[in-house]
Amino acid sequence: MRRHVQRKAWAGRFADASHPAVEAFTSSLAFDKRLALYDIQGSVAHCRMLVKQKILTRAEGEKILKGLDSIKQELQRGTFPFLPSDEDIHMAIERRLMEKLGPVGGKLHTARSRNDQVLLDVRLYLRDEIAAIQRLCQSLQRQLVRLAKRHAGTVMPGYTHLQRAQPVLLAHHLLAYYEMLERDRARLQQCSERVNVLPLGAGALAGTTLPIDRHYVARLLRFPRVSENSLDTVADRDFVVEFLAACAILAMHLSRLAEELVLWASSEFAFIELPDAFATGSSMMPQKKNPDVPELVRGKTGRVYGNLFALLTVLKGLPLSYNRDLQEDKEPLFDTVDTVKGVLGVLTAMLPHVTFRTDRLREAARGGFLLATDVAEYLVEKGMPFRRAHEIVGKVVRWCLEEDKQLEELSLAEWRRFSPLFEADLLGRLTPEAAVDRRRSYGGTARVQVQRRLRAIGEGK
Amino acid sequence: MRRHVQRKAWAGRFADASHPAVEAFTSSLAFDKRLALYDIQGSVAHCRMLVKQKILTRAEGEKILKGLDSIKQELQRGTFPFLPSDEDIHMAIERRLMEKLGPVGGKLHTARSRNDQVLLDVRLYLRDEIAAIQRLCQSLQRQLVRLAKRHAGTVMPGYTHLQRAQPVLLAHHLLAYYEMLERDRARLQQCSERVNVLPLGAGALAGTTLPIDRHYVARLLRFPRVSENSLDTVADRDFVVEFLAACAILAMHLSRLAEELVLWASSEFAFIELPDAFATGSSMMPQKKNPDVPELVRGKTGRVYGNLFALLTVLKGLPLSYNRDLQEDKEPLFDTVDTVKGVLGVLTAMLPHVTFRTDRLREAARGGFLLATDVAEYLVEKGMPFRRAHEIVGKVVRWCLEEDKQLEELSLAEWRRFSPLFEADLLGRLTPEAAVDRRRSYGGTARVQVQRRLRAIGEGK
Amino acid sequence: MRRHVQRKAWAGRFADASHPAVEAFTSSLAFDKRLALYDIQGSVAHCRMLVKQKILTRAEGEKILKGLDSIKQELQRGTFPFLPSDEDIHMAIERRLMEKLGPVGGKLHTARSRNDQVLLDVRLYLRDEIAAIQRLCQSLQRQLVRLAKRHAGTVMPGYTHLQRAQPVLLAHHLLAYYEMLERDRARLQQCSERVNVLPLGAGALAGTTLPIDRHYVARLLRFPRVSENSLDTVADRDFVVEFLAACAILAMHLSRLAEELVLWASSEFAFIELPDAFATGSSMMPQKKNPDVPELVRGKTGRVYGNLFALLTVLKGLPLSYNRDLQEDKEPLFDTVDTVKGVLGVLTAMLPHVTFRTDRLREAARGGFLLATDVAEYLVEKGMPFRRAHEIVGKVVRWCLEEDKQLEELSLAEWRRFSPLFEADLLGRLTPEAAVDRRRSYGGTARVQVQRRLRAIGEGK
Amino acid sequence: MRRHVQRKAWAGRFADASHPAVEAFTSSLAFDKRLALYDIQGSVAHCRMLVKQKILTRAEGEKILKGLDSIKQELQRGTFPFLPSDEDIHMAIERRLMEKLGPVGGKLHTARSRNDQVLLDVRLYLRDEIAAIQRLCQSLQRQLVRLAKRHAGTVMPGYTHLQRAQPVLLAHHLLAYYEMLERDRARLQQCSERVNVLPLGAGALAGTTLPIDRHYVARLLRFPRVSENSLDTVADRDFVVEFLAACAILAMHLSRLAEELVLWASSEFAFIELPDAFATGSSMMPQKKNPDVPELVRGKTGRVYGNLFALLTVLKGLPLSYNRDLQEDKEPLFDTVDTVKGVLGVLTAMLPHVTFRTDRLREAARGGFLLATDVAEYLVEKGMPFRRAHEIVGKVVRWCLEEDKQLEELSLAEWRRFSPLFEADLLGRLTPEAAVDRRRSYGGTARVQVQRRLRAIGEGK
Repeated sequence: MRRHVQRKAWAGRFADASHPAVEAFTSSLAFDKRLALYDIQGSVAHCRMLVKQKILTRAEGEKILKGLDSIKQELQRGTFPFLPSDEDIHMAIERRLMEKLGPVGGKLHTARSRNDQVLLDVRLYLRDEIAAIQRLCQSLQRQLVRLAKRHAGTVMPGYTHLQRAQPVLLAHHLLAYYEMLERDRARLQQCSERVNVLPLGAGALAGTTLPIDRHYVARLLRFPRVSENSLDTVADRDFVVEFLAACAILAMHLSRLAEELVLWASSEFAFIELPDAFATGSSMMPQKKNPDVPELVRGKTGRVYGNLFALLTVLKGLPLSYNRDLQEDKEPLFDTVDTVKGVLGVLTAMLPHVTFRTDRLREAARGGFLLATDVAEYLVEKGMPFRRAHEIVGKVVRWCLEEDKQLEELSLAEWRRFSPLFEADLLGRLTPEAAVDRRRSYGGTARVQVQRRLRAIGEGK
Repeated sequence: MRRHVQRKAWAGRFADASHPAVEAFTSSLAFDKRLALYDIQGSVAHCRMLVKQKILTRAEGEKILKGLDSIKQELQRGTFPFLPSDEDIHMAIERRLMEKLGPVGGKLHTARSRNDQVLLDVRLYLRDEIAAIQRLCQSLQRQLVRLAKRHAGTVMPGYTHLQRAQPVLLAHHLLAYYEMLERDRARLQQCSERVNVLPLGAGALAGTTLPIDRHYVARLLRFPRVSENSLDTVADRDFVVEFLAACAILAMHLSRLAEELVLWASSEFAFIELPDAFATGSSMMPQKKNPDVPELVRGKTGRVYGNLFALLTVLKGLPLSYNRDLQEDKEPLFDTVDTVKGVLGVLTAMLPHVTFRTDRLREAARGGFLLATDVAEYLVEKGMPFRRAHEIVGKVVRWCLEEDKQLEELSLAEWRRFSPLFEADLLGRLTPEAAVDRRRSYGGTARVQVQRRLRAIGEGK
Repeated sequence: MRRHVQRKAWAGRFADASHPAVEAFTSSLAFDKRLALYDIQGSVAHCRMLVKQKILTRAEGEKILKGLDSIKQELQRGTFPFLPSDEDIHMAIERRLMEKLGPVGGKLHTARSRNDQVLLDVRLYLRDEIAAIQRLCQSLQRQLVRLAKRHAGTVMPGYTHLQRAQPVLLAHHLLAYYEMLERDRARLQQCSERVNVLPLGAGALAGTTLPIDRHYVARLLRFPRVSENSLDTVADRDFVVEFLAACAILAMHLSRLAEELVLWASSEFAFIELPDAFATGSSMMPQKKNPDVPELVRGKTGRVYGNLFALLTVLKGLPLSYNRDLQEDKEPLFDTVDTVKGVLGVLTAMLPHVTFRTDRLREAARGGFLLATDVAEYLVEKGMPFRRAHEIVGKVVRWCLEEDKQLEELSLAEWRRFSPLFEADLLGRLTPEAAVDRRRSYGGTARVQVQRRLRAIGEGK
Repeated sequence: MRRHVQRKAWAGRFADASHPAVEAFTSSLAFDKRLALYDIQGSVAHCRMLVKQKILTRAEGEKILKGLDSIKQELQRGTFPFLPSDEDIHMAIERRLMEKLGPVGGKLHTARSRNDQVLLDVRLYLRDEIAAIQRLCQSLQRQLVRLAKRHAGTVMPGYTHLQRAQPVLLAHHLLAYYEMLERDRARLQQCSERVNVLPLGAGALAGTTLPIDRHYVARLLRFPRVSENSLDTVADRDFVVEFLAACAILAMHLSRLAEELVLWASSEFAFIELPDAFATGSSMMPQKKNPDVPELVRGKTGRVYGNLFALLTVLKGLPLSYNRDLQEDKEPLFDTVDTVKGVLGVLTAMLPHVTFRTDRLREAARGGFLLATDVAEYLVEKGMPFRRAHEIVGKVVRWCLEEDKQLEELSLAEWRRFSPLFEADLLGRLTPEAAVDRRRSYGGTARVQVQRRLRAIGEGK
C-alpha cells in the first residue's frame, strides 16, 4: 500500500512545480529532523483531541494513531524514508502517514497549520532540553561543592584587576561559580514557564472554525497554560530568544571559569595540574600539554553569543504574524543546546580530576601586601578614620617596596614609626589564615561563613 | 571649613600622581553622576548600620548623615562642585564630605569598597527604572486595550508572509502586542527579583573584618535578599545583562509594531492616518508627511541590541573578581534605560491619535481568497479529509485566478463543479465577518474570544 | 601494509590517553573535513620545498607525493577511512599517510605545525570561495542590469520613509542594488589580498630551525606575499573576520532587496508577480502563494551577522599566540560561505522570472503629490528662494488634501492663487515621465543618466 | 535683523505643530552638533557651485558665504544660539542663516535635501577622523618599534595555549602587534576610499531638476569620486559599517595587547612594571596598584563591537531609499571614533613608561622544556623522521618530569639512552638565545630576522 506522494501538499493552487533551487534553499528537513519524535507526540495528542471532539471518528483516530506509532518506530530505528522533496519534518511525516493509510492520513492536519505545529514541536523539545541543561548545571554545581568541601581550609590569593588583593578560601572562590549557576538555573526555570504554553490551535494565524478543545490537548501534553492570542502565538519566538539569552549568560560564566583554569594551568600561576586525559599535545612541540578543554569552553562562548544575535536580528522589524524568516530560529537554538550541554558536560567530567596545588596557592597568598586592608581595618578598630588609616598603610607599603620588605617582616617598632596605634596584637594577625577567618561578614570568606553556605546548599537553600 | 582634597584617596602607596591622560581615560564621572542620589541613599543606610554596630559613634554618625543630607541638597539644586580630579561619583561625594566635615568624613568608607558600593548604587537605580519601565509598558498596554475596545468589530486581513491570509479583528491584532508586553513585564519582574539583592558588605572582594550587619542594611534599603558570596558579588553583572536582554526582546516587539505602523501609513496599505503632530516633513519635498516616530522606534532596536552585545563582550572571559572592564557596564545600561523609556513613551503618546481607516481595512479583508481556509474546513465538516479539501479549494482558487473571479462571486453550480459536497449554506459563510466569528477556538479571532480576553484583561488576569 | 595508527601523534609526553569526552569535545574533524583537498594541496607544496631544500631526499619526497595523491583520490571518491580518534583533518591525513608509507610518512610534518598548516588550508579555501562569491555577485549584477535594460522606461514611485516621494525609473531603482554589489565586490577583493598571504613556515609560533624556503612555497601556491611575523601569523584571524564583515554588509544589502520583493509581492503593493516555481504554499490555507525565497534571504541575514559576532567574541582578549579558542573560527566561516552563496544563487535564479507589473508601478507614480518638489524647483527657476517655494507648495498640497484634489488636476488659475510666478508651462511638467527626465543631475534618475550608467557598466567602468 | 524662525522649514503642508514628545524623540541636535563645521564647509562648496551654475546670483552667493562665515565663527566661539526647536544641525544653521540674511538665506537649500547633505557632513567628518586614527596607529607602531629596538636581544617565552612553547625575542613579540596595526591601517585606508565619494547632488532620492555640477563640488571638497546612483546614495551607510568593522578588528587587536599587559603586570608573570602614573589604587585596599588602563582598553572592545552590531541591526531589511532609522548611524559612529582614538592615545602614552623586567623574561624562557622542538629538529637534521623525533623527545620530557629534571640538565649519556643520534653538539644548543637565533626562517624570531624586519619597517616597507 505504499505510494510515494511527491507533490507538495499545498500544490492545488499552483500551476508549476517548485524550482529545484527553491526546494534546496527553503527545505528545513536537514535540521528539523531533530524534532521528529516531538512531532509525533504532538500529533498523537492532536489526533486524540480530534476524536474526542468528534471531528474524527474513533476508527479514523485509531488508524492514525497506529500509523503514527509505526512511523515513530521507523524514526527510532533509523528506517524512516526521507525524500528530497520533503519540505520539512512535518510534511515528511504526513506524507509517510498517507503512504501508510491512504486518504485518511490527510485528516490528521485538520484544524492545524504548520505554523502552530512547529511551535508545538519546538516547545516540547525545548522543555525537555531546558530540564536536561538544568540537570547538567546541577552536576557541575555538585562538583564545585565537592571540591569546595575538599578544600575547606585551602587559602589562596583573591584577585581584583588580576592583582592579588586579599587572601580567600579556595572553597569560597569555587562557590562563587556555584552562585552563578544557581542564577542560571533560576533563569532557565522561569524561561521554561514561558516555554510551557500550548501553541497548538492557533492555526495558521487566526484559530480555526472547527470545534477543537485546546485545553484538552494541553492536559494531554502537560502544558499548564494555553496561549491567549492566535496571531501572537504564531509570530512569537520570545521563548527561544529568552532561552538563548539565558544560555549566553551561562556561557559567559563558564568562559570566566575557563579563563581561570587556563591561567591557573600556566607555568606562571601553576595553581592546578590538569590530568593528561584532559589535556592535548602539540603536533610540533613535544613537551606541550595544553588546556584545550577550558580554551574551547571559553571559545564556544562566541557561538552562543552569535546565536542569540542571529535570532534577534531575524526578528527585528518583522510584521505579524508568521513570516518564513522565522524558520531561521532552529539552527541557532539547536546549536546552542548542543554547545551548552557539551561545555557543561566536559567541565563536569574534568573538574574532579584537576589537582589543586595547595602549596602554591598558600604561598601566593603570603606576602605581596595582601594583608594591607587588615592593617587598615586594625587602625579603624583603634578609632582612626578609615580614609586616614588607608593612607597610612599605603605609606607603609610604599616604604616596604623601597626597602624590599614584606608587611609580615616589620617589627613593632617599624610599624609604630607610622602610627602609635599599632600594638603587639597586630603581629599575630598577619597570616593569610587569620585574615581569611576575620572576614566573617555575611557572604565573606571566613571559614564559618563558607561552612554556613555549604550547609545551606546541602539543605537545598 | 572648605578644603579641596585633590589627592586621590588611594594615593598613599603611590610615588607619582596620575598622568592626565589616565585621569581622562579612566574617569567615569561623566556618566555615573546619574547615580548620585542613589549613592547618597546607600551611604545613609551604610552609616546607620555602622552606628548601630558601634563601628561609628552616634555623634560621628549624625555628623555624617547631616553632611550627606547637605550634599544631597547640593546635588538636587545642581550646585554640587564637581572637580576634574574626581574619579567617579563615589569619590566626588566622599571628597565633598571631607571638605564639609574634615577627617570624620573619612569614616564613612569604613568596611566598604567602591566595588560593592557601585553595585549598590546600580541595583538601587535599576530597581527603580525597571518599575518605571513596567509602568510604561502598562500604559502602552492600556492604549492597546482602548483601541481594541474601540475597534471591537473592525475586520481586517490577517497576514502571514505579508500575504493576506484570513480575516481577523483589528482588536485581535492589537491585542497580540498586548500579550507580548505582558511577557515583557513578566521577564522584567523576574529580572527585578535578581536585581533586588543587597551587594553591600562584600567589600572589595572578600567581605570585611569589621562587625557589620548586612541584613540590617538590607532592611533599611528594602532588599529582600543579601548576596551569598562576596567574590561573586563584586564580579557579577548578570542582573544588568539580564535586564539588557529583556529590553532587547521588548525593543524587538516594538520594532515589529513600528514596522506595521510604517507599512500601514504607506499609500499602498493606507490603513492608518498619522496625526500631523506625530509626523514630520521633508526639507526638500513639500508634500511629505513621514512616519518618523515609528521609523525611529524601529531603528532604536539597533542600539538596544548593541548594548546587550557590548556588555556580553565585556564580560567574556574575565577572571574573578572585580576587573576595571566592568566599569563599561554603565553606559550600555543607561542608554538602554533611556531608549526603552523613550520608545515606550512616544508610542503611548502617539497611539491614541492614530486614525484607523476601517473602510480600507474591511475592504482589504474582502476578496483575495481570504476565505479559502473556511471553504476547506467546510468540506471537512462534510466529512472530507482535510488534505483533500485543501487540494480542492486550491484548485478552485487557481480556476478563479484564471477566470479573474473572487470566491464570493461563484455560484453554487460553479462550486459544485469542484465537489458535490458544496451546498447552499456555503454561500452565506463567505463574508469576512462570518469568517472571523467562526474562529471560536480558544485564543482565536472570533468576537466572543476577543471579548473574553478583554474581560480577562480588565479583571487583571 | 595498512596499520591503524590510533595513538595521538603528540602522545609521547603523555602517560594517559585522552578521555573520550575530551576527544568528542575537541575534535574538529566533523567540520574541517571540508578543507581536505586544500590540506593535500598545501602538503604537496610543502613536500616539494623540503626536497628542494634537501631536508627530504628526492626519493622520500616522491614517495610522499605519491602517497598524498593516493589519499587525494580516496578523498575525492569518498573512500577515505576517517577514524573517530582523528583529531582533525590534518592528523587524519598524516595518519593515513603513515598507514600507506610507514615511517617516511612521518617526515611530511617536518618544519611545520598544525598552527601554520591549518591557516594555509583556510587561506587556500577562502581565496577560492571569495572568488566564487565575487562571481555570484557578478551574476546577480548581470540580472539586475538585464532587468534595468528591459525596464529602461518604466516609471515607479521612489520612496523615502516608505512614503512615495518622487517618480523614478525602475531601472534606476534596480541599479541601486548594482552599486551596492559593486562595493561588495571591491571589499571582497581587498579582503582577498589580505587572505592571499602565505602563513606556512611560521611553525608553531616562532618559525623553525630547519632551512626552509617560504618564498618557494609561496610561488608554488601562488601567494604574492609571505607573512612577516611568525607569532602574528599563527595568532591572526583578521582575514576571516574581515571576510565575515564584508559578507555581513553583503547580506544586509540582500536583506533590503528581499524586503522590497516581499513588499512588492504583497496585495497592497502588487508591483510584482512571483513565478509559481519560486513561491510556496500553506499547509492550511489553500489560496496562499508566499514569497518564501526573499523572506528566507532576509532571515538569513541573522546567521551572517551572528557568525561575525561569534568570531569577534572568540578573539576578544586572547593573548598571543595560538590558543585553542581559534578552532572556533571555522564553523562561522563555513556557514557564512554557504549562506552567502546560497542567497546569491537563489536570488539570481529567481530575478529573471519576476514579473514587474509596469501598469501598477506607473499608476502608483501618478498623483500622490510626487511632483511637489518639481513645482518647488519650478518656482526656484523663476527666482523664488527655495525655502519660500517649499512653503508655498506645502500649502498647495494642504489645500489639495482638504479639497481632495491632485496637483495634476489644478487649473492655472488655481495655481496662481498661491503664486503669480506660476505660468502655463508648469502644467506640461506634471507627469511622472517628465519629472523623471528632468532629474538630469549626475547619478539622477533621468533616462539619459540611467543610460549613461548602463553604458559605463557595459564598458566595465 | 534677528528674527527667530521657530516654525519647521517643512511645515507648509502641516495643519498642526509637532507634539513636544515627538520633537524630543526625533531631534538629533544633541549629537549631530559635532558635524557643524563640516556642514558649513559643505554649504560653502554647495553655494559656490550654485553661483557658478547661475542658480544663484553672484551677489546672493556672496551674502550667503558671508553669513556662513559668521555662523562658523559663532560655532567656533561657542556663541551659536541653538534652539530647542532645531531638529538637527542642518536646520539650526539654515535657521540661523535666515535670521541673519532674511529670505535669501532660504536659497542655500536649493537643489539639495538633508538626505544628501547629512551624508556629505558625515563623509567629510569621517575622512578626517580616519586620517587621525591612522596617525594614532602609526604613533603606537612607532612606540612598539622603539621598544623592539630597545629589547633587540631580550629573550622571553613564546606562548601557545598560554603555555610556554618556544623562546622568542621580546622584540618579535612586540612586532606582532606592529603587523596587526599595519593591517588595520590598510583596512582603514581602503575604507577611506569608499568614504571619499561625493554624495551631494543626490537630492532627497532622485537627483534634482536644477542644473547643478556635482563634479565641481567634488573638486572643491577634494572628493576623487562622485556617487553613481542617487537612490543608493541616500540609502547607503556601507562606509560607516565598514569603518565600524575595521575599528572592531582594531579594538580586538588592542584587547589582546591589553590582556597581555594585564597578565604581565600580575604577580605571577611579573614581566612588566607599570609606572605609578599609569596605574590606579583601591578605595579599600591600601597596597593595590591596578592596571586600569589596559583593563579599560580591553573592556572598551565591548562598545566598539556593540556599535557595529547596532548599525548592522538598523540597516537589516530597510527598503530603499532613505528611512529615518538611518539617523541611528551617528551615535555608534561618534562613540567608536572617540573610543578608538582614546584607547590608541592612552596606550601610546603608556607604553614608553612600561618597564620590562628582562631578568624575569629570560628566566621564564629557561627550563620548562621550551627547547623540546629544537631537540626534535636536531634529530630531523640527523635524518630521523619528524614524527618519530617528536615521539622520542616527548618521552624524554616525560622522563624528565618523573625525575624532576630539565632538558638542560641531562648529560649526553642520558640523552643517548633515548637515541644514539644525540651527540655532543646538542648540548651547546640548549639555551634560549641559541634557540631563538636558529629560527632563521623568514618571519621567524631569530635576531637576523627581527633586525631585517626592523630595517624594512624603517624604510617604510
